[in-house]
Amino acid sequence: MTLIIDCHGHYTTAPAAHNDWRDAQMAAFAAGDAAPAYPTIGDDEIRDTLEANQLRLLRERGADMTIFSPRASAMAPHLGDEAVATGWARANNDLIARCVDLYPDIFAGVCMLPQSPGADMAGSIAELRRCVELGFVGCNLNPDPGGGRFDSPPLTDRYWYPFYEAMVDLDVPAMIHVSGSCNPAMHATGAYYIAADTIAFMQLIQGDLFADFPTLRFIIPHGGGAVPYHWGRYRGLADMLKKPTLDGHVMNNVFFDTCVYHQPGVDLLADVIDTKNILFGSEMVGAVRGIDPQTGQYFDDTKRYVDALPIDDAQRHAIFEGNARRVFPRLDARLKARGL
Amino acid sequence: MTLIIDCHGHYTTAPAAHNDWRDAQMAAFAAGDAAPAYPTIGDDEIRDTLEANQLRLLRERGADMTIFSPRASAMAPHLGDEAVATGWARANNDLIARCVDLYPDIFAGVCMLPQSPGADMAGSIAELRRCVELGFVGCNLNPDPGGGRFDSPPLTDRYWYPFYEAMVDLDVPAMIHVSGSCNPAMHATGAYYIAADTIAFMQLIQGDLFADFPTLRFIIPHGGGAVPYHWGRYRGLADMLKKPTLDGHVMNNVFFDTCVYHQPGVDLLADVIDTKNILFGSEMVGAVRGIDPQTGQYFDDTKRYVDALPIDDAQRHAIFEGNARRVFPRLDARLKARGL
Repeated sequence: MTLIIDCHGHYTTAPAAHNDWRDAQMAAFAAGDAAPAYPTIGDDEIRDTLEANQLRLLRERGADMTIFSPRASAMAPHLGDEAVATGWARANNDLIARCVDLYPDIFAGVCMLPQSPGADMAGSIAELRRCVELGFVGCNLNPDPGGGRFDSPPLTDRYWYPFYEAMVDLDVPAMIHVSGSCNPAMHATGAYYIAADTIAFMQLIQGDLFADFPTLRFIIPHGGGAVPYHWGRYRGLADMLKKPTLDGHVMNNVFFDTCVYHQPGVDLLADVIDTKNILFGSEMVGAVRGIDPQTGQYFDDTKRYVDALPIDDAQRHAIFEGNARRVFPRLDARLKARGL
Repeated sequence: MTLIIDCHGHYTTAPAAHNDWRDAQMAAFAAGDAAPAYPTIGDDEIRDTLEANQLRLLRERGADMTIFSPRASAMAPHLGDEAVATGWARANNDLIARCVDLYPDIFAGVCMLPQSPGADMAGSIAELRRCVELGFVGCNLNPDPGGGRFDSPPLTDRYWYPFYEAMVDLDVPAMIHVSGSCNPAMHATGAYYIAADTIAFMQLIQGDLFADFPTLRFIIPHGGGAVPYHWGRYRGLADMLKKPTLDGHVMNNVFFDTCVYHQPGVDLLADVIDTKNILFGSEMVGAVRGIDPQTGQYFDDTKRYVDALPIDDAQRHAIFEGNARRVFPRLDARLKARGL
């Protein structure tokens, strides 16, 4: 038996009161006032937003679990100051914790971080520790918290090291995931996300981060951006830069999800990237919600593409379950505690 | 018979005196002085740099022609002021013109533009017209002349329209190509180039540029960035944005080259993108110069990947020759004048 674990789901359908509070928080910041109290949101309201969306689609598509994080495009840690970013991160993560509590067999939590640009990582470390105590199994780390100018230090810079130390200490991975784009030249889900994924991978090639953190684990979402399509280019650039081959240099620590919305793309991913580095993911409910007229199926029903891969059962088990349990040991422990 | 036309070659091996002049030009600008006179560079010196590199590889690999432009990473139009950018563009384009004059059967010229950030496109239009009079067949248009912050208007913005009017008037296409990266978070050939390609394509989906310019033609290099790998995402995003399907909305006007440095990538490109939109290109001598240990062949010998595609002769002819002649009508006219 294989559990179908979607490693990449966002709570894009949070109750309106949650989003209204964000507006009120920002208005209070602009006015120089304290943020208002967070509203009371009933369990039923949370259930309704999940049942009508993520849970419905998960069941329709035959998946078992989702590793669940706040809406990525709304993280926007550049808005307000660090206190605003912290308040918003806590509100979002607490809401994810409630989703997990309501559906403990279906959701596992991944937290967002209060990465106010220019602040150090201390606030993010504190929020990560708080969330892991709440039962979260990973985090989303934003490599460009400024929101679209790529003006943060590369992921290999020592700026990030205290956070990596906490990740290693807690044994949690990070999905490298930007938020919405403030750059009119860059569409969020069509340009910024994919560009950021690609840029992050190249940073890792250029550096030697995993020599310093051999157990650090990153998931690069959206199928690794452009990386698998240009795998020859990246292998060749590692050679040009006198780096070790990618298998030892980065691919013990970097994983790609299957958020690639057509069969040829997922075929390529599985062809060039080792099975051990691929985690099933759909980004659902996410960037693309329509039906592909070429197939009659939802673009983001990526389980179909994985089901259709010409791989053996052991490989499919790894992509659907085994790799996620290896990359998220705290998820594995939760599943083992359930006898799975 | 099929001519093998490489649509994407750069003069990355220009004589040292040319690069030294750039240093002197920048030093003069810093000192508030006029730029020194451009050095005398002999024909033999130019021949040597080409024979030892581009021409050697072209012959070894069995290609016939290269559409040839200045070194992309050195365009750097953000350095100095508009006069500096203009002087450098003219020097580079004049050097390309000399290469073409020395090897008129092998090279066709594509010019760079003096896109000083913040300036309007008048200087670029003047340089494009000058180069077309010299026999050039196209141009490289930089969508981010600032060099790594993506702070220029999207390609669909009216800022660019006067330039597009000149392109249409002259019937020349543009390759969308950034220069070197000034952003320490973005490696030029491994991150910035691929990100810029991807971002440019999404801008074109979001806009309706080709309704205003139905004959405008863009080549997006490096295999279209991440686009073919994420073709389902882009088809789905067009649907989400209530745009027409990509075939009519952008794919009458946008072309991808084959600068993808492994067989599975070129296979995917040819699988998901119509043959009519693919132009053979190698970016040679370019980003990756080594030999792939998996194949024993140069990573950037992209002709091998096209040769190995499971397509028919008519398709291969289109990718190697026919599409380039259609996209570059001034090249087609030159070839016809040679009886080809």
